[in-house]
Amino acid sequence: MIRVERAAEARRTRESWSAFELSHAQEELPTAVELPEHPGLWQVAGGEISPYLGEGLEVAYPHATPDELYAAAARAWPAWREADPEVRVRLCLEVCDLIHARAARFVPATMHTAGQSAGMAAAGSGTNALDRGLEAVAAAWEAMRRVTPSATWTGRFGKHDVSLAKRYRIVPRGVAVVVTCASFPAWNAYPAILANLATGNPVIVKPHPTAVLPMAMAVAACREVLSAAGFDPGLVTLAVDSAERPIAKELIKHPACRIVDFTGSAAFGSWVEANAFPAVAYTETSGLNSVVIDTFDEQVLRALAGSLCLFSAQMCTSPQNLFVPRRVFADFADGLAGAVRQISTVPRRAAAMLAAIQSDSTLSLVSRMRSAGSVVLDALPYEHPEFPGARTCGPLLVATEDRAVYGEERFGPIAFLVPVDDRDEGLARAASDASTHGAITAFCYSTDEGFVARAEDAFAWAGAALTSNVTGPMPLNFSAAYSDYHVSGLNPAGNASLTDDSFVAGRFRITQSRRPA
Amino acid sequence: MIRVERAAEARRTRESWSAFELSHAQEELPTAVELPEHPGLWQVAGGEISPYLGEGLEVAYPHATPDELYAAAARAWPAWREADPEVRVRLCLEVCDLIHARAARFVPATMHTAGQSAGMAAAGSGTNALDRGLEAVAAAWEAMRRVTPSATWTGRFGKHDVSLAKRYRIVPRGVAVVVTCASFPAWNAYPAILANLATGNPVIVKPHPTAVLPMAMAVAACREVLSAAGFDPGLVTLAVDSAERPIAKELIKHPACRIVDFTGSAAFGSWVEANAFPAVAYTETSGLNSVVIDTFDEQVLRALAGSLCLFSAQMCTSPQNLFVPRRVFADFADGLAGAVRQISTVPRRAAAMLAAIQSDSTLSLVSRMRSAGSVVLDALPYEHPEFPGARTCGPLLVATEDRAVYGEERFGPIAFLVPVDDRDEGLARAASDASTHGAITAFCYSTDEGFVARAEDAFAWAGAALTSNVTGPMPLNFSAAYSDYHVSGLNPAGNASLTDDSFVAGRFRITQSRRPA
Repeated sequence: MIRVERAAEARRTRESWSAFELSHAQEELPTAVELPEHPGLWQVAGGEISPYLGEGLEVAYPHATPDELYAAAARAWPAWREADPEVRVRLCLEVCDLIHARAARFVPATMHTAGQSAGMAAAGSGTNALDRGLEAVAAAWEAMRRVTPSATWTGRFGKHDVSLAKRYRIVPRGVAVVVTCASFPAWNAYPAILANLATGNPVIVKPHPTAVLPMAMAVAACREVLSAAGFDPGLVTLAVDSAERPIAKELIKHPACRIVDFTGSAAFGSWVEANAFPAVAYTETSGLNSVVIDTFDEQVLRALAGSLCLFSAQMCTSPQNLFVPRRVFADFADGLAGAVRQISTVPRRAAAMLAAIQSDSTLSLVSRMRSAGSVVLDALPYEHPEFPGARTCGPLLVATEDRAVYGEERFGPIAFLVPVDDRDEGLARAASDASTHGAITAFCYSTDEGFVARAEDAFAWAGAALTSNVTGPMPLNFSAAYSDYHVSGLNPAGNASLTDDSFVAGRFRITQSRRPA
Repeated sequence: MIRVERAAEARRTRESWSAFELSHAQEELPTAVELPEHPGLWQVAGGEISPYLGEGLEVAYPHATPDELYAAAARAWPAWREADPEVRVRLCLEVCDLIHARAARFVPATMHTAGQSAGMAAAGSGTNALDRGLEAVAAAWEAMRRVTPSATWTGRFGKHDVSLAKRYRIVPRGVAVVVTCASFPAWNAYPAILANLATGNPVIVKPHPTAVLPMAMAVAACREVLSAAGFDPGLVTLAVDSAERPIAKELIKHPACRIVDFTGSAAFGSWVEANAFPAVAYTETSGLNSVVIDTFDEQVLRALAGSLCLFSAQMCTSPQNLFVPRRVFADFADGLAGAVRQISTVPRRAAAMLAAIQSDSTLSLVSRMRSAGSVVLDALPYEHPEFPGARTCGPLLVATEDRAVYGEERFGPIAFLVPVDDRDEGLARAASDASTHGAITAFCYSTDEGFVARAEDAFAWAGAALTSNVTGPMPLNFSAAYSDYHVSGLNPAGNASLTDDSFVAGRFRITQSRRPA
C-alpha cells in the first residue's frame, strides 16, 4: 500500500513521480493469449492486421455472447463486492505489477496493433499508462477511505437522548463495460479497468476489433491476479467483436450494465453519453486541438513539428489546427514544413517519431485532404528501417480558411494552417472551436504575458488544457500521470477526466444501517 | 469558515452536530415576496392553496420565460465563476444564516404550502434542511480544496530535465436547474442550490406549482446575499409554472442547461435521468419503503405508529409496506391499529403529528385504496384544533397479499400489512422490492442478531438505509444531516445521495495550463 499512498500524494501535489521503471526490452510478438476458464468459443478475430507487417495477427480469442459475459460477472461479483476495499486496491496494484513485469511482451503487442513505435509502446502505453492506472486506483482508494465505516450518533429528542450505532458501507455500482480505442488503448483502459475493480465492480473489456491483443493480455493479467487471490476470474472478461458485427451497443444496453467507460469516436461517444442510462458513462472522444501563434522562432517550429510527427498525430492530444497571423503566415508555414521534413524524411528519426499508421482509412483521409486547401507540405511515406512493409505516412500540412475543412476532427497526420488577421482572432476561433467541437489540448506561443494570460482564461473556460511557450525535449502533447488532468469534461471531447474525484466517486455508492447503540 | 470546517468534520465523523439553533417562533403567513430586478411579469401563480385554510395564497411571483432566466444566468455567471471558491462558500453560509434569521417567516410559508406542522416546518424544513444545505457546501468546499491550485513539475526527457509551472482551476459546469417537490422542498432544495452556488454555477429554481412560496423566499435570500456582496442576483432565479403549463422539460432541454437537480415523482425522475444529457442529473424520487417484522412489542408498535402518522406519511422516508409473519399477523395488525388510533384520534396529538394533507389527490388515493384489501384501520379525518378547515386524514391500514396493490408507491397516509410465511420471506420481498421499485429507507425488528445481520446485508445491496430495532422518541424515519446518507443511488429511488462526494464532484470540472517554470 505504500505505493498507493505515494501515488495519492503525487496526485495531491501533482509533482513528477512514477511507480514503474522504464525498460526497452522487447520480446517476440505473442501468438496466443491464455485466458483459462473464460467463456466463449476460441477463434481468430480477423480484424487485427499489423501496421508494421501488413499481415494478420492470427491470435485466437474467446468469443462469448454478452449474456455469457454478464453471467460470468454476476457469478464472480458477490465475493468481490464484499471484499475489503484495501484487498481490492492491493490486487489492482498487483495487476499493474504483473503487466509491468510483462512489458517486453506488451511492447510488440501494442506496436503490431496500434502501430506505435517501440519507444512509445514501452513508455506511453507502458509505464505512463500504468501510472495513469495507479493514479485512478489511488483516487478510488482515497474516495473510499473518506467514508467513515462506522459512527456513534447521539441526538436529543424532547427530553431524551437517543444513541444510534451506524454502519456505512461502500457498495459497488455493478457491471462495468470498458470500450477501448484502436491507437492508444492502454492509456484509458488501465484507469477504467482498475478504478472499476478497486471500487468493487466486475469489468467487461470490449477492445477495438483492430487492437484486441494488448487488451486481451491486460485482461489475462487481471484474471491471473484475481484467481491467484482466490477470486473468480469472471470479474474481468474480454468481449471480442468485429467491424461487421459490433457488440458495444448490446453490451451497453444490457439490463445489468451499470458503468460504461468509452474511448473512441465523438459520434459513438455522444451516443454512449445519451444512451448509457441507467448506467453512468465516462467518455473520452476527440476534438479540435489548436495552436495559437503570436510569436515564434526556430525552437517553436521544432517543438510543433515534433508534436505533429509524434505517432503520426494519432493521439487525442495531437494538435490539428494552427492559427497563424497573416503577417507571419508565409514564414511560419515554410519554417514548419522544413522542421517537419527534418524528421519525416530521415527514416531512422521518422521510425522513432512517426511510427506506423494504425488504419488504412487514415491514408484515404490524408489523400482526400490533399485537395482541401493549399498543400504546404505533402504527406509522403517513409521507408521503415526495420519493417519494409510498414504503413507509414508523414504529416500533411494544408493551408486553408475553410471552416468546413478544419472545423472537424481529421484523425491522423493532417494539420491545417489557418491564416488569421491577428493573434486575438486566432485565440477566439481556437477557444470557440474547443467549446463547440471539443478539444483536449491547446497550445499557445507568445512573448506577451498579457496575451498568454488571456489564452489561459479562454481555454480554461473552453475546457482545453493549455500548454504555453513550451519548446525543448518534452513532446508538447505529453501528459503526465498524477500531474496533468486529461480531458476536462467541459466540452464535447469527453465527460471524464483522468483523474479527478468525479472519475471515481460515482463508481460506488454508500449504504448505511443503524440501530440502538 | 469555521462553521464550514466544523461541518466538514461532522461529515467525516458522522457524529451529531447542528449549525442552527431551533426556534419555534412564528410570524404571519407572508403575502408577498421581494425579488428586485428579477425578470418576468408579476402575477399570482394560482396553484398555491393552503392545506390548512383551503384558500389560495394569492402571492404574486415573477413569471419569466426559460430564455429570460437563462439570459439572466449568463449575464451573472462570469463574475461568479471567477470568484474565489472561498468567497462563494462564505456567501453560501450567509444565505443559510439569512434563511435561518427568517425562520419564523418560513414556518408559515412551509405549513400553508406543504401542509407540514409548525414543528416540522421549523425543524425538518428549517434547521435540519439548512444543515443538509451546509453539509453540501462543506462537501463542495472539501472537494474543491483537494484540487491543488498550482504545482511545479520536473520530468526527465533523454538527458534533459524539463520544468513546468502548472496551474489548475476549478471551472463550474454551467447553469443548474433545481426542480423541487410539493411536500418537503427545502430539504433537497438547499443542498442542490448551495452545492451549485458553491461550485460556481448559476441556479434556476423551479418549485412545484403548489409550493412556490418557501422556494421563492429562499431564492430571495440568495439574491439578497449575492447582491449585497456585489454579485448579479441573476445567479439565482425563480421559474414559476402551473400544472396546466409545466416548464420543467423546457428548462431541462434548454441548450445551456448543464446540471439538473430533481425531487419528485419516479416517472418524471426517470425521464430526467434518461434525458438530461448533456446536463448531469441528480435525482431523488420515491419507492417502496418496507418494514420487516420478526418480533415486536408495544414499543415497536408505538414507534411504527409514529412513523406512519408523521406528516401523514407524506415523506420519502415513510414506510409503506409492513411484512408480517402469519403466526403473529392478527396480533400485530390489532396492536398497530390501536397504536395509530392513540395518535390519530386525539386532535392535539394528531395536529402535531399528522399535520395536513398537501394535495387533494392524496385523499382520492386513500379512498380508492380502501377497497384494495381488507381494511385494518380506516382513514378518518381529524378536527384540527387551530385550523377547522384543514385537509386532514389519519392513516389507512390495509391488509393485502396483492402485489399489484402494494408493489407500487401509494403516496400519503396509506400502509399495507402483508402477511408472509416467515421473516425470511418478508426480508426477501422487501429487499427485492427495494431493488426493483426503489426504496430510500427500510426497517427491521428482530431480537435475533443473525437475522438483523442478514437484513443489513440484504438492504445494503438493495440500496436502502436500514433502521433496526429503533423505538423511543426519535421518529423512525428521521434522517440526520452530516450523519445519515439519504438515498443510495443503487435503486430507482434516485441517483444522488445527500451528501456523498459524487453529489458535488461533478458540479465543477478542472482545467489546467502549463508553461516553462
